[in-house]
Amino acid sequence: MVPVSALSAPAPSSIAPAAQGKRVFNYSAGPGQMPEEVLRQIQEDVWNCRNSGVGILEHSHRAPVFDRILAEAVQDCRDVGNIPSNYHVLFMTGGSTGQNFMVPMNLLPSNRTGSADYYNTGYWANQSIEHARPFGTIHECASSKGDNYAYIPRPEQVRHSNAPAYVHYTSNNTIFGTQFHTIPTPPNGVPLVCDMCSDIFSRPFDVTRFGLIYASAQKNLGPAGVTLVIVRDDLVQKGNRDIPLMLQYRTFATGESRPNTPPVFCIYAMGLMFKWIKKMGGTAYFERFNAEKTRIVYDVLDRSSFYKPHARADSRSFMNITFRCPTPQLDDLFATEASRQGLDCLKGHRAAGGIRASFYNAMPKAGAETLAQFMKEFERTKG
Amino acid sequence: MVPVSALSAPAPSSIAPAAQGKRVFNYSAGPGQMPEEVLRQIQEDVWNCRNSGVGILEHSHRAPVFDRILAEAVQDCRDVGNIPSNYHVLFMTGGSTGQNFMVPMNLLPSNRTGSADYYNTGYWANQSIEHARPFGTIHECASSKGDNYAYIPRPEQVRHSNAPAYVHYTSNNTIFGTQFHTIPTPPNGVPLVCDMCSDIFSRPFDVTRFGLIYASAQKNLGPAGVTLVIVRDDLVQKGNRDIPLMLQYRTFATGESRPNTPPVFCIYAMGLMFKWIKKMGGTAYFERFNAEKTRIVYDVLDRSSFYKPHARADSRSFMNITFRCPTPQLDDLFATEASRQGLDCLKGHRAAGGIRASFYNAMPKAGAETLAQFMKEFERTKG
Repeated sequence: MVPVSALSAPAPSSIAPAAQGKRVFNYSAGPGQMPEEVLRQIQEDVWNCRNSGVGILEHSHRAPVFDRILAEAVQDCRDVGNIPSNYHVLFMTGGSTGQNFMVPMNLLPSNRTGSADYYNTGYWANQSIEHARPFGTIHECASSKGDNYAYIPRPEQVRHSNAPAYVHYTSNNTIFGTQFHTIPTPPNGVPLVCDMCSDIFSRPFDVTRFGLIYASAQKNLGPAGVTLVIVRDDLVQKGNRDIPLMLQYRTFATGESRPNTPPVFCIYAMGLMFKWIKKMGGTAYFERFNAEKTRIVYDVLDRSSFYKPHARADSRSFMNITFRCPTPQLDDLFATEASRQGLDCLKGHRAAGGIRASFYNAMPKAGAETLAQFMKEFERTKG
Repeated sequence: MVPVSALSAPAPSSIAPAAQGKRVFNYSAGPGQMPEEVLRQIQEDVWNCRNSGVGILEHSHRAPVFDRILAEAVQDCRDVGNIPSNYHVLFMTGGSTGQNFMVPMNLLPSNRTGSADYYNTGYWANQSIEHARPFGTIHECASSKGDNYAYIPRPEQVRHSNAPAYVHYTSNNTIFGTQFHTIPTPPNGVPLVCDMCSDIFSRPFDVTRFGLIYASAQKNLGPAGVTLVIVRDDLVQKGNRDIPLMLQYRTFATGESRPNTPPVFCIYAMGLMFKWIKKMGGTAYFERFNAEKTRIVYDVLDRSSFYKPHARADSRSFMNITFRCPTPQLDDLFATEASRQGLDCLKGHRAAGGIRASFYNAMPKAGAETLAQFMKEFERTKG
């Protein structure tokens, strides 16, 4: 077993030995690994946050300590994403799946006569389509379903419908290991909506190309339980008013993400992640870092006749690497053997099978090197 | 300042001195104070949960560690509440305010021709009514609004409508400091729905009297970010099907509270709270304990001509005590002065003014004694 703690920065001396247990590499597609220095900060703040004498789990969402935490989280998010003031930064609950129905519920006409265009590029993209169907006509403007979602459609393969209310896509497909490497261009004036759940802030992107971006936290932004929504003000204003108040974006925009008690701890933790991203060098740093990490593993795949990658080379994700051993039995053996050696959660999603290794921002380079080493050794002995 | 850590059980030796910062008494109405032994457990598990090598914030919601945590949370909840198998125990998000629209959305006919009866006994009860109005005819079967919500209506004051789909009440009113001390009896066969957010598991109650109970965590059940829903199976089955999947109770019942990624950490923390309640002696213990704690403060109120309690004696809450000083200026001075001495968050809600002190399960007896002492001293010097 390779404990991560032996490979990264030493833990602060303020934490007791009993809390220094050995940690493993966690390749889970989400919830996923977090930076150890963020975990150390959380351990302290659970007891006493910002010298208030009250732990972060116990702070009122209307008290001054959380006022500051919330304001900093919004500002740090704006800094990381270079988000202009005509966009709201909202913290909501319900996950990306919650947004799957909230987007059409808010942005399609309530009488269900409207339409929207969706890219069908994976399991979750397909789920977004299914959750949107009850609200209007959903047009698949491009799909790679026929090839088991092994690629991202090229611009010339996209066919838009007539006057869609918005165009929706999923920027990274965790299950099949594909990722958009350019931002799609919707028809003129049509807002672009993105489920950026699994690659937000893993690389720079131009927010002004989007009308609305949503991302649940549990990949690059901390623990599950809060969903980041970045939405342009005109879409908030245009949103339907004949739906429950708590399902309107304007309620969260007006109420500073706390029209009722928000998930205080999860917002706090996401705020720490924004600060960590800034400190490490921002999204530009992570773009290089994630490419560097995943190249180590992709190189093993490309030199192997044993492993078969799922994604086409031009559509490969820098977040999730997917591949297969020669047989499903060997896939199982791979995951089991790896887990025994401290490489956890490598089994592929049930919808795709095979192996999946996730390399979100917080995964250290040693996580890629250790996996590459394991893959070579496994191929040598089982190939 | 009176540090709580000096008054309760000594902290485990496994936590470092730097995490031993002084803590204050936190009388917040929620999020509120948590038991220190639970905080200590969380500190450890954030680094490495159940010897998995992965922290609780990073665990996949589909991995074996969380499978066990979730199963234990459900079972421990059933044990604490004596909940029979024809009730589902669900963990959702969106808070009690989210349930305010989900209950009528699921249980009133979709064509808006139905009706439901609501008790109007406080600010949040009134909010529940407002969120329900778009879904049908809402009848206030009893109200104490005219007396600024100073009491709980007696059974003979209740007037039910003809064939309501359900009867809704709020068992404890945090802002005005009143509490139902008996469970209302709805018309024969009509399901009783309760917002038990602020007093759940603070005393025993017969679950079988209810059709549906909801409670966001942040008073007696841990950090904000998860909502407990206890719902009888026939209501789940009867719920509307022409609403978004993620707003149907059956989706959460079928999907074991994880149709999508749930708030893993918040469910884990609520599970720890259930275990703590069981260990302390269950709801019967807390009924005695909370009565004992609040009596210390109510006794000061009853012997004072300086302080004026808001709630009528027969409707007093064992969770939240509300009162006023002779002037609003003295209320402010009281809260400020108390805060300086380590008695935090005593300012009343903006809708009620005055002073509010919350005594959820996790508040130690010393929290009542210290407040009582402070009140007497304040009256002596300012009265």
